[in-house]
Amino acid sequence: MQDVSANVVERISRDPFTRFLGIELIDLRPGYSRLSMEVTEHMLNFHGIGHGGAIFTLADAAFAAAGNSHGQPAVALTMSINYIAAAQQGKRLIAEAKEQKLGRSAAFYHIAVKTEEGELIASCQGVVHRKGQFQYGPKA
Amino acid sequence: MQDVSANVVERISRDPFTRFLGIELIDLRPGYSRLSMEVTEHMLNFHGIGHGGAIFTLADAAFAAAGNSHGQPAVALTMSINYIAAAQQGKRLIAEAKEQKLGRSAAFYHIAVKTEEGELIASCQGVVHRKGQFQYGPKA
Amino acid sequence: MQDVSANVVERISRDPFTRFLGIELIDLRPGYSRLSMEVTEHMLNFHGIGHGGAIFTLADAAFAAAGNSHGQPAVALTMSINYIAAAQQGKRLIAEAKEQKLGRSAAFYHIAVKTEEGELIASCQGVVHRKGQFQYGPKA
Amino acid sequence: MQDVSANVVERISRDPFTRFLGIELIDLRPGYSRLSMEVTEHMLNFHGIGHGGAIFTLADAAFAAAGNSHGQPAVALTMSINYIAAAQQGKRLIAEAKEQKLGRSAAFYHIAVKTEEGELIASCQGVVHRKGQFQYGPKA
Repeated sequence: MQDVSANVVERISRDPFTRFLGIELIDLRPGYSRLSMEVTEHMLNFHGIGHGGAIFTLADAAFAAAGNSHGQPAVALTMSINYIAAAQQGKRLIAEAKEQKLGRSAAFYHIAVKTEEGELIASCQGVVHRKGQFQYGPKA
Repeated sequence: MQDVSANVVERISRDPFTRFLGIELIDLRPGYSRLSMEVTEHMLNFHGIGHGGAIFTLADAAFAAAGNSHGQPAVALTMSINYIAAAQQGKRLIAEAKEQKLGRSAAFYHIAVKTEEGELIASCQGVVHRKGQFQYGPKA
Repeated sequence: MQDVSANVVERISRDPFTRFLGIELIDLRPGYSRLSMEVTEHMLNFHGIGHGGAIFTLADAAFAAAGNSHGQPAVALTMSINYIAAAQQGKRLIAEAKEQKLGRSAAFYHIAVKTEEGELIASCQGVVHRKGQFQYGPKA
Repeated sequence: MQDVSANVVERISRDPFTRFLGIELIDLRPGYSRLSMEVTEHMLNFHGIGHGGAIFTLADAAFAAAGNSHGQPAVALTMSINYIAAAQQGKRLIAEAKEQKLGRSAAFYHIAVKTEEGELIASCQGVVHRKGQFQYGPKA
């Protein structure tokens, strides 16, 4: 978590929905994040494989972490996800978000979701809007 | 739920992840669905508004319901979501999926997520791959 | 072209690339546009049908026209296109862009590309970034 | 162009719309392509920078080349593009498409558009539908 303020790490770690899904923050650096999630029984869809919404949420959490890593609030404008392979129950998935460009009012990310063995499950790209010059305070 | 077999309705209603989030199936017709979800406290993100992953999951559930409404298994290939307005805690959201084209091996959908008051929260479009001629059996 | 300033209409009509492809502006209102293009022989791809890039350009031109209709410069951040049916040579296509939300710094659009007979060819959605308070001048 | 049949290379090289825009095929291998295009005066938009449709077309041409590189016809189902930086007139752009997964009926690609100096202009991802077992004939 080098080069990211403790406030920002704490704030991102306390995200209610990602905690609800058991998503864990593995790495956070400016413009970069890596998070993991296990595909549990309640994350399946009616085909019996990992639900697209659960896989997306992991990717989205990585996107939000990377997007907010600079300390300036960033909100998602858009995300596109391609579902490349099915995620089986019990698998641990890793989402890695990489910043493609940090602009003044927008920033761009690519996010890959893979199994621990490295199989690509989903490919995503997203854009955030960076809000003003406001910084997260010491007690956000 | 007219014109959709009871098997298909039951199958879709039993989706583990959408049940986990309290998503309810309101309407299901061939190529059409409407589902609802309340933005609860554990669905918020670290900005304090509805998490993009929760909003996406509602849209994705509507997409999956409409895509599988014909009784032939359909799996998502891609989805794109634009986040148009923030969803506040306690709001009930409605996702409505409409089929744009039902092809032999692919089908296309547009999904809108709105509040009960009609404010547009997110706009999505997705494509499913329709798998073979297999039909859900009586005891799927 | 009601309720859109003559300057803006003229500016949009002079777009070099859309003129190069013979794209015509049919209607322009605040947050709304309709444009048309004929699929000519040089717009085909190596499968012998309308090239995805030509169809996209028509949709993108409608997106840009609607996004800039308010007189404040808007640049595209993202666009997603689903290819629903092939466009045959000689067909005239119509793209219609509708504003879903006009925000202060971002605006959201859905764009449908159809044949004159009403067959849906492509479905798109996009987001623009609205640049500052600068307005197009009288002699932009 | 190693490992790709001469028929396929010839077929892709003869694409009418990419020829119309002066797009050149630089490299083609199974699941991979690289193409280039100069941003000419007639490819500008009404803001005076490279038109989103022209940039998209270059990316789409790379996507189509990589998708059809295996000799089995593939048609685009979807594409998403994020516009990361403006492309100035006179710049030569390079699009590079990489296959993420080659499935039986679908295949997945990421496409980056950069200047010759390496600045990222646009990031795209797309999915093709692979049509049956038909192969391009010797004189396609």
